[in-house]
Amino acid sequence: MATAVATKGLEGIVATTSSICWIDGDAGVLAYRGIDIHKLAEQSNFEETTYLLWNGRLPKGAELDAFREELAKARVLDPKIIELLRSFPKDVTPMEVLRTAVSALSCYDPDEGDNSHDANLRKSFRLTSQIAMLVADYDRIRKGKPLVDADPSLSHAGNFLWMLNSEKPSETATRTMDIALILHADHELNASTFAARVIAATLSDIHSAITGAIGALKGPLHGGANEAVMHMLFEIDKKGEDAVEHVKAMLAAKKKISGFGHRVYHTEDPRATHLRRMSEALGKSANKTKWFDMSRAIEQYINAEKKLNANVDFYSASTYTTLGIDIDLFTPIFAVSRIAGWAAHVIEQHDDNRLIRPRADYIGTEYPAEYTPLEKR
Amino acid sequence: MATAVATKGLEGIVATTSSICWIDGDAGVLAYRGIDIHKLAEQSNFEETTYLLWNGRLPKGAELDAFREELAKARVLDPKIIELLRSFPKDVTPMEVLRTAVSALSCYDPDEGDNSHDANLRKSFRLTSQIAMLVADYDRIRKGKPLVDADPSLSHAGNFLWMLNSEKPSETATRTMDIALILHADHELNASTFAARVIAATLSDIHSAITGAIGALKGPLHGGANEAVMHMLFEIDKKGEDAVEHVKAMLAAKKKISGFGHRVYHTEDPRATHLRRMSEALGKSANKTKWFDMSRAIEQYINAEKKLNANVDFYSASTYTTLGIDIDLFTPIFAVSRIAGWAAHVIEQHDDNRLIRPRADYIGTEYPAEYTPLEKR
Repeated sequence: MATAVATKGLEGIVATTSSICWIDGDAGVLAYRGIDIHKLAEQSNFEETTYLLWNGRLPKGAELDAFREELAKARVLDPKIIELLRSFPKDVTPMEVLRTAVSALSCYDPDEGDNSHDANLRKSFRLTSQIAMLVADYDRIRKGKPLVDADPSLSHAGNFLWMLNSEKPSETATRTMDIALILHADHELNASTFAARVIAATLSDIHSAITGAIGALKGPLHGGANEAVMHMLFEIDKKGEDAVEHVKAMLAAKKKISGFGHRVYHTEDPRATHLRRMSEALGKSANKTKWFDMSRAIEQYINAEKKLNANVDFYSASTYTTLGIDIDLFTPIFAVSRIAGWAAHVIEQHDDNRLIRPRADYIGTEYPAEYTPLEKR
Repeated sequence: MATAVATKGLEGIVATTSSICWIDGDAGVLAYRGIDIHKLAEQSNFEETTYLLWNGRLPKGAELDAFREELAKARVLDPKIIELLRSFPKDVTPMEVLRTAVSALSCYDPDEGDNSHDANLRKSFRLTSQIAMLVADYDRIRKGKPLVDADPSLSHAGNFLWMLNSEKPSETATRTMDIALILHADHELNASTFAARVIAATLSDIHSAITGAIGALKGPLHGGANEAVMHMLFEIDKKGEDAVEHVKAMLAAKKKISGFGHRVYHTEDPRATHLRRMSEALGKSANKTKWFDMSRAIEQYINAEKKLNANVDFYSASTYTTLGIDIDLFTPIFAVSRIAGWAAHVIEQHDDNRLIRPRADYIGTEYPAEYTPLEKR
């Protein structure tokens, strides 16, 4: 039988070694490959950060150029995939579409069946570009709008906004999206990444692992949380209520306030710092600080009353809404970013693999229970 | 930071409590809800075993009748799903198709968005019937054969063989498939089931969890193993080699022999006992004991030389081949059975949920690493 006591949720249990992401939950530190997330958010961009996650170091100029080019070249979807996107009922959630389409991508990937390090990297380029395209394309399809061709001259963040909106994004919008993508790119063994590693550890392929990760991200305790935050803000706004009074009533009714607290952080989530700043700046520049003001009031109240800090999800809600992005695209956009980290973890898992297979603490009917024949039941 | 030492692969670590499956790896015991697998293999059937896994006890006569009826009624695929099956390139593996199609099923499921116990049960009925249909239908589509309508008068095992082959299966074939489905129906926190629970624990939906599980099952260290066994037997046969000499040469070349050894069992896998018996009986009744004889010789050699026992995958290879089933359907058939256990585990997870989120032991570049600006690299 198993040798350790039951640890529901594996809290505090080490499941693997990893060189990708460092989190100090007490100090509020997040670092990719040793580099602090604040430096990356201030000075880096999504392409460079993805290079760092996949290769373990920052690229030199020519390497970064080649990396950008490879990503831009990978902005291609097989016509069969577009046909698949068009085939879904129009009320299906974008996360179901993304999960299904990413699974289908393996059927058209020239490296399917090859789990080598190099093939995994090639597939990671394609998946990174394709996931952004799937999110943008499906949103336009469900709205009856024509699709927009990828623009190889734009950055990953810029091209995503371009394909989503069919208008060249402002510098502020592009940089905001770029920073959001950096902040969400990896977070150690969060549930979706862990799901990806469990799947990859059977030596299954990266498409299987990423499809599973998207399924995990879909859950409201994971990627779905920022959507829940925005639903709350919309409800407060619609009812014309005071934000703090609304939250007080929710707490009195024992309802969970999404966007606060974290399994790992016991102080401010360092990603929240940037999202708060961007939410405020975007609101001011658009002359629409409503969502930020509401968020800030709720945050201060929850800080004081519940001693809980805002997490990455809390201010991404108002940030994305101020950027004009639909609420049910928040979680898909999380995937547009997190594919960078998922891919890094699948590659690391395949490079030094061991099957991930824990045990359960059996608390059911005692063995051996009788098999009573049907006629005697 | 995390509080436990690194346990690569979570070997021996308890990840959750569970009332579903009991394994004693030292004694070679497997039991569903306390009932020994030998009793179930000898006296039960897949429908009754699935009822047991989902409800925690054996059904009374009327309950079993209602359960069979519900499963038979669920033998329906939306025409859009059939269209999807027809759209794949014909050389795509059935596991990629199954993973994609199961993901797509949520888009047509009336209970999508409802993770309650009752909705999960309703979705489990549908998934159980639909997975068997997807496997049979895709095999016929890729072979250019017309699809076969489900027959509500047949058992789950019988209907699967009927839809696959378009001929009424013999009693022996049906009972063999039925027992194979019982034996594969659950196995505690194996990698695919664990993946399903990690995904479900974000409160994502059962389709996400099962899609991820199928992705995990696809790997050669999990469901893919019986395919590897059969590839070996075919190779030996094609080259006209002696089975034991072939295996000796593989061992000398440090190649892994699939179908032997198990993370949990340190004695005979109790499922192997039944599959060995069925492989032999089927071979004798078909006057084709070649695959069984070859398997038995290899097993005796590996027992003696490596002290390793055959696992569930070893004799399922020759059993399925003697039933006339294509090699790349072995893993999909594993899914046709394991959906029973996956569903039981997702329901159990949702009924008393906690996010599954372990930690990694960080061994990468020490924090804080410098962020050198691009021009200085």
